[in-house]
Amino acid sequence: MKKLSILLLHGPNLNLLGVREPAIYGAMTLRQIDEELQRWASENNVDVTTLQSNHEGALIDAIHEARHWADGILINAGAYTHTSIALRDAIAGVALPTVEVHLSNTAARESFRHHSHIAPVALGTVQGFGWHSYLLGLQGLVARLMNEKR
Amino acid sequence: MKKLSILLLHGPNLNLLGVREPAIYGAMTLRQIDEELQRWASENNVDVTTLQSNHEGALIDAIHEARHWADGILINAGAYTHTSIALRDAIAGVALPTVEVHLSNTAARESFRHHSHIAPVALGTVQGFGWHSYLLGLQGLVARLMNEKR
Amino acid sequence: MKKLSILLLHGPNLNLLGVREPAIYGAMTLRQIDEELQRWASENNVDVTTLQSNHEGALIDAIHEARHWADGILINAGAYTHTSIALRDAIAGVALPTVEVHLSNTAARESFRHHSHIAPVALGTVQGFGWHSYLLGLQGLVARLMNEKR
Amino acid sequence: MKKLSILLLHGPNLNLLGVREPAIYGAMTLRQIDEELQRWASENNVDVTTLQSNHEGALIDAIHEARHWADGILINAGAYTHTSIALRDAIAGVALPTVEVHLSNTAARESFRHHSHIAPVALGTVQGFGWHSYLLGLQGLVARLMNEKR
Amino acid sequence: MKKLSILLLHGPNLNLLGVREPAIYGAMTLRQIDEELQRWASENNVDVTTLQSNHEGALIDAIHEARHWADGILINAGAYTHTSIALRDAIAGVALPTVEVHLSNTAARESFRHHSHIAPVALGTVQGFGWHSYLLGLQGLVARLMNEKR
Amino acid sequence: MKKLSILLLHGPNLNLLGVREPAIYGAMTLRQIDEELQRWASENNVDVTTLQSNHEGALIDAIHEARHWADGILINAGAYTHTSIALRDAIAGVALPTVEVHLSNTAARESFRHHSHIAPVALGTVQGFGWHSYLLGLQGLVARLMNEKR
Amino acid sequence: MKKLSILLLHGPNLNLLGVREPAIYGAMTLRQIDEELQRWASENNVDVTTLQSNHEGALIDAIHEARHWADGILINAGAYTHTSIALRDAIAGVALPTVEVHLSNTAARESFRHHSHIAPVALGTVQGFGWHSYLLGLQGLVARLMNEKR
Amino acid sequence: MKKLSILLLHGPNLNLLGVREPAIYGAMTLRQIDEELQRWASENNVDVTTLQSNHEGALIDAIHEARHWADGILINAGAYTHTSIALRDAIAGVALPTVEVHLSNTAARESFRHHSHIAPVALGTVQGFGWHSYLLGLQGLVARLMNEKR
Amino acid sequence: MKKLSILLLHGPNLNLLGVREPAIYGAMTLRQIDEELQRWASENNVDVTTLQSNHEGALIDAIHEARHWADGILINAGAYTHTSIALRDAIAGVALPTVEVHLSNTAARESFRHHSHIAPVALGTVQGFGWHSYLLGLQGLVARLMNEKR
Amino acid sequence: MKKLSILLLHGPNLNLLGVREPAIYGAMTLRQIDEELQRWASENNVDVTTLQSNHEGALIDAIHEARHWADGILINAGAYTHTSIALRDAIAGVALPTVEVHLSNTAARESFRHHSHIAPVALGTVQGFGWHSYLLGLQGLVARLMNEKR
Amino acid sequence: MKKLSILLLHGPNLNLLGVREPAIYGAMTLRQIDEELQRWASENNVDVTTLQSNHEGALIDAIHEARHWADGILINAGAYTHTSIALRDAIAGVALPTVEVHLSNTAARESFRHHSHIAPVALGTVQGFGWHSYLLGLQGLVARLMNEKR
Amino acid sequence: MKKLSILLLHGPNLNLLGVREPAIYGAMTLRQIDEELQRWASENNVDVTTLQSNHEGALIDAIHEARHWADGILINAGAYTHTSIALRDAIAGVALPTVEVHLSNTAARESFRHHSHIAPVALGTVQGFGWHSYLLGLQGLVARLMNEKR
Repeated sequence: MKKLSILLLHGPNLNLLGVREPAIYGAMTLRQIDEELQRWASENNVDVTTLQSNHEGALIDAIHEARHWADGILINAGAYTHTSIALRDAIAGVALPTVEVHLSNTAARESFRHHSHIAPVALGTVQGFGWHSYLLGLQGLVARLMNEKR
Repeated sequence: MKKLSILLLHGPNLNLLGVREPAIYGAMTLRQIDEELQRWASENNVDVTTLQSNHEGALIDAIHEARHWADGILINAGAYTHTSIALRDAIAGVALPTVEVHLSNTAARESFRHHSHIAPVALGTVQGFGWHSYLLGLQGLVARLMNEKR
Repeated sequence: MKKLSILLLHGPNLNLLGVREPAIYGAMTLRQIDEELQRWASENNVDVTTLQSNHEGALIDAIHEARHWADGILINAGAYTHTSIALRDAIAGVALPTVEVHLSNTAARESFRHHSHIAPVALGTVQGFGWHSYLLGLQGLVARLMNEKR
Repeated sequence: MKKLSILLLHGPNLNLLGVREPAIYGAMTLRQIDEELQRWASENNVDVTTLQSNHEGALIDAIHEARHWADGILINAGAYTHTSIALRDAIAGVALPTVEVHLSNTAARESFRHHSHIAPVALGTVQGFGWHSYLLGLQGLVARLMNEKR
Repeated sequence: MKKLSILLLHGPNLNLLGVREPAIYGAMTLRQIDEELQRWASENNVDVTTLQSNHEGALIDAIHEARHWADGILINAGAYTHTSIALRDAIAGVALPTVEVHLSNTAARESFRHHSHIAPVALGTVQGFGWHSYLLGLQGLVARLMNEKR
Repeated sequence: MKKLSILLLHGPNLNLLGVREPAIYGAMTLRQIDEELQRWASENNVDVTTLQSNHEGALIDAIHEARHWADGILINAGAYTHTSIALRDAIAGVALPTVEVHLSNTAARESFRHHSHIAPVALGTVQGFGWHSYLLGLQGLVARLMNEKR
Repeated sequence: MKKLSILLLHGPNLNLLGVREPAIYGAMTLRQIDEELQRWASENNVDVTTLQSNHEGALIDAIHEARHWADGILINAGAYTHTSIALRDAIAGVALPTVEVHLSNTAARESFRHHSHIAPVALGTVQGFGWHSYLLGLQGLVARLMNEKR
Repeated sequence: MKKLSILLLHGPNLNLLGVREPAIYGAMTLRQIDEELQRWASENNVDVTTLQSNHEGALIDAIHEARHWADGILINAGAYTHTSIALRDAIAGVALPTVEVHLSNTAARESFRHHSHIAPVALGTVQGFGWHSYLLGLQGLVARLMNEKR
Repeated sequence: MKKLSILLLHGPNLNLLGVREPAIYGAMTLRQIDEELQRWASENNVDVTTLQSNHEGALIDAIHEARHWADGILINAGAYTHTSIALRDAIAGVALPTVEVHLSNTAARESFRHHSHIAPVALGTVQGFGWHSYLLGLQGLVARLMNEKR
Repeated sequence: MKKLSILLLHGPNLNLLGVREPAIYGAMTLRQIDEELQRWASENNVDVTTLQSNHEGALIDAIHEARHWADGILINAGAYTHTSIALRDAIAGVALPTVEVHLSNTAARESFRHHSHIAPVALGTVQGFGWHSYLLGLQGLVARLMNEKR
Repeated sequence: MKKLSILLLHGPNLNLLGVREPAIYGAMTLRQIDEELQRWASENNVDVTTLQSNHEGALIDAIHEARHWADGILINAGAYTHTSIALRDAIAGVALPTVEVHLSNTAARESFRHHSHIAPVALGTVQGFGWHSYLLGLQGLVARLMNEKR
Repeated sequence: MKKLSILLLHGPNLNLLGVREPAIYGAMTLRQIDEELQRWASENNVDVTTLQSNHEGALIDAIHEARHWADGILINAGAYTHTSIALRDAIAGVALPTVEVHLSNTAARESFRHHSHIAPVALGTVQGFGWHSYLLGLQGLVARLMNEKR
């Protein structure tokens, strides 16, 4: 059976994980999260390719590229979640199944973090579980791609 | 090791699952979803007790009761998600770790479904994965309760 | 020809009719209104089953039940008109033709009575005619069910 | 017993009925609707005088005239429902009992159709029943004028 | 010295004066008000030409015409005060000094009467003095036209 | 002199008092508060009948019943304060003098707690004094019922 | 015939008239305006007593005092027009007929000048005529007090 | 090949072109603009029929008529752009391809000119190019009608 | 045991009590209210010092002074309740326990009276009981100062 | 006569044209659109230089550069239209005549696409004509640059 | 060279500095801040005259006076910053260069502190540096007055 | 004593300084401003490192880097001030003391420039002093870093 290929995108400031406001975002670094995901992925016949960027345009370029090789996208768009219609349009444009994740529970934070431009074009969202949000989101995305009916 | 006990709450109209607007909510019945969760739970040393009610007060009563026996709550509050501050207060009052789930992606639906009174007092939210939202939410809740660090 | 079966639902505080603020709601009691409707119904080969409840959940339960026996719903949801998304979802979920009625002209009252959660899922609304709103609403519902084209 | 005289007003674009967006407004022409109403009126000892105009001022003029001969007004103000305070003032000024009707269920359409300037000065509203809205509205108006108590 | 020529415009429903809601608008008819103004005008070497219309377009046409003969405009735009940008543009377009008057104190009435499209392009406003609003407005307009400095 | 009869209503989650968020709501249980009020009542020739419910409908039912025996109502509607128009209508419908109380100072909490549907139909409000809010509210209600003029 | 007594109040910054932003407020000083009004008053058997203050409390005190001697109030509340509910309450409290005037056309200025707390408790408003606003307002007030019917 | 027939509609105040605020609207008269368009039209085998009116109803009537003879509509609705839902409904009702034009750049003017009721039912909009807006709009409309694919 | 000292502040227009709108504020004068409070105070070993002022600054000065001698503040800030952040800051700055009272039920009056700048920095609020609001507020404040636990 | 030089800017996701949501954006690729424009440009003695970028900063850099060589700018800013004040400032900063174009009719799409930061600093806008929007916009820009008077 | 004269104004509650909420406002008293500023002023050939008042009117009076002797104003208007249009008008009226300062960073506090009526008529603002805000603001004001070009 | 190291960031379009809208931003170029700051810095034992970029991502990258070498940040984020939550998060993430500066007084400009995402995470703001804003901001930042107590 063909392996699934997933693009894992980390948006602005996520390179600071483990450094930035650990009370909110947890103590694990981005590298450690990626390793956890890779472990699960390799056990489940899934390829995960990771990119972190603070540049909105670079994230959009990566999404465009993904349409040539990926089966789905797992994205934590960070602050661009709340401000980037361009990112939303990129996801809608390539039409790949996309799952949105957040480390923290954005609904319990500042009101400007309550609205997501990504959510309406994502198939689903997982948030508030720390780095587990990524793992759960990946599992949900893979299950969907494996043609499980809801 | 002590078994974990989870209260699984289904809010108003979820008894119609498989009947009501299947294009939005999927074809599985509530009973089938509960069976899927029970299967995972029994394999993972977890007890899941289920209640569905269309009565806001009955859901609150159940949450109050849970403080005597449950380790956490998994809740799909249905439409009360958007209107019930009383439910929110019940969850905050018993102070049990609570995960909010939704079958559909509420962010892609009518604007009156975009705000959740539950989310700010939940530890996390999973939505948009059909019945898988429940399973992912349960896994996330159990992981948290098993003392995994984020 | 098969008789039509209609569920007639009265929401919160309508049991006070004839008692509560007669300047707004009129002097007839709920029983008297039901009798007027039953008279018209029996003359027109229609069965009308009535329920009044102050409990949002009880109204939802009745709507769910109706999907097994009723051809349509006539509802005065009272104050839940303005606050209950759960009631709206119940009506949309059972997909029975539903007519919304109000005794008073809600547009001429407090602004919090101007929005109806029921109206968008109803086929039509009649309001402001006192107890005649019920009669007109029933006639409109029956005409629709008798397959009259608009 | 003296015959009742009713002014039946059709606002802008209603002359297109049967032509304009039949999925929303139905297939009957305005002439056909008027004939249906005349049939009921003649059977019930009521005179109905009809005017359609796309001119806000012409509708206001007609309302002013009506104060010399009519007992009540049945009005579908079309789009002026949402924009014309002048029409509202005309109705309030002549102080004739007025019923507002709409073919479609405006609550289920664009948000700019949700507010009515007419409703607060009407005695009641009927909407969503296609051409039956007119008939139900006329019946309700006549019943009120016949001094039925609510 | 050259006589001043003033266009006096009465908007929708003002033909009902003395009939419509006298508690708000007073008991004088429009004809009586015009006579009072004519008396003052003839004593002060001013020509006043009057038009009442319920048609927004007719009011605009009259304003356009006025640019060929009038020195200023005195206008009670009635309900069009609150809805007509076209009327505003007409006044701005002919660039004649314009005074806005209202019989009632619109600030003490419904909130939809609190905003005036006319006021920002008028030189001044007089309201709340019943028919005296017209007289004071006329005096203020004439004083301004007579080149009194403020 | 005839004894006064008061209905004392506690809304949702108030059964958790002493357990739920004591920093906000204080350490006394609901039973202890009721005892304090009974003590004062018996010393002042007043009968107080208590009901706590998490069910909006049950609170409404109790208010309806009260119209047959009570002289006034003392209510802490909890979260329903902010969401229940039905409760408001029940109080307005039975037309019994009603005092609204809150343990905490709702004005200093989340913005969704700043609006009360109960307050506009209450004769007065006492909030922020912990359990003393009940006592002061009862004293104020009794004083009013004893026909003290303000 | 008894002379009428009028309190003429000038609010904050009006002492700067002739100095402050003459393009907006005109070149006449406050003293000159008062003299113009006194001239008209003495010719019309009216006593006008003037006070200017930059202190909200002093203006309120003066209004309170006026209830012992004045027949009406003419007020240009300056910036307090837009911010002082206390001034509004003072006017409503003494229940003297009050006319509001403004030199400039506030509707054509910044949006924070569009709302007046004074207008709803005034009998009328005159604005935009420079110092003539005062004269017209005084004439309107006196006409009203002389028992002219509108 | 059959000639195309276009209805060219000019809304309120456009008859003042060349007179009204030339800094905003340019120095060309409406007649001159029409001549420019006729020149292009005759060179391109297109018939253009022009109407200017200050009456909302007359514009609606003309649109209704056009359904019997025109292939498309070019409209500068002037101020009715921002206030007329009836005009919008007329365009939607006749279902002729319609292009909206404006002389000035409405986005750079007062905020009440930023919303267009026409735009959502037009196929496209051209604004800000002075009289060239008409020419470009006509070219775009004709291109579309000539079956050019975008 | 040391006597408690309370500053009792009355804001703008409260000197008019008994005069101003008695239907809203009751028939007792401010002096009579003060006497009632003094009677209770002297019976309960409490000193009450009273100040009424229409000057926002004078009220602030008094609050500042109170920090040298008072144990708590009882304040009816009148209209400054709704407009004065400076008063709020004064109360927060001196950090004395403060109780807010109102004669009328502000929640049932104009919407601009629904927001209080004082409430969030007060320990509690009593309103709607006429002059009894003061008495209940004083009792609540003293109880709190006597170290009663809630 | 000197050739005109135009910078043609395509914003984010426009590289997907022909791929992304063809129902909305049409079937032509960006390259094909550029070729069409080049054809018209070469026939009309105009040089067009094209840049597409998904990077907001790159678009700004290009606009800055253009001030050294271009006579005007034609821009489809894509989603940055709605979110980028920086882009707006760049256009205002270089002060080159700029025309804004959109393939689709943004007024008929989601509400977050209704506001443009670019429009107020552009000379004009063309939208809704598919790739023809570019051609019409280019013609309008060139006509303006060729010193045609509006 | 002529000495510069500066009016230094401290608004309501600033007399409490060092006492009131030191976590927000710092531990220095107002006197100490004034001394620091006087030291810098005397070293830089500047005269600084200080006034603190809790009275809005007194601050306005001082600003009016300043037009006879001062070269500029340094003002911390405290809470009046957010509520006083009269203060704004005073500053605009005397047309003296004015710098606004705040001890705390108002943007990081309650939302009602985010808007300043003073800022739009000030030449600049300094906030968030504790007492240093005054010193930096004074330096900026003096630099501007010394005719430094920006 | 160790030298302080400051990162000086200039956001989008600031490279145009001296070119772009000099009436708003002044005539000095960015290079000249940097030289002025370097002069002051070298005299005060401070190292200032400058970066200008039009790329949001590049500014974020620079802030991240600064956490390894800088003691504080001085930033003029230009238009990103109003739109970039990502920039805000970067500043909060590295937790370096940050001062926000603006050349112009943003409070006196368009309303979309009134809100700053940077301000709530900055220690202070200086704006409106032209290039002096930078100098004052730098002095304030250095004073704070030198451990001056406010």
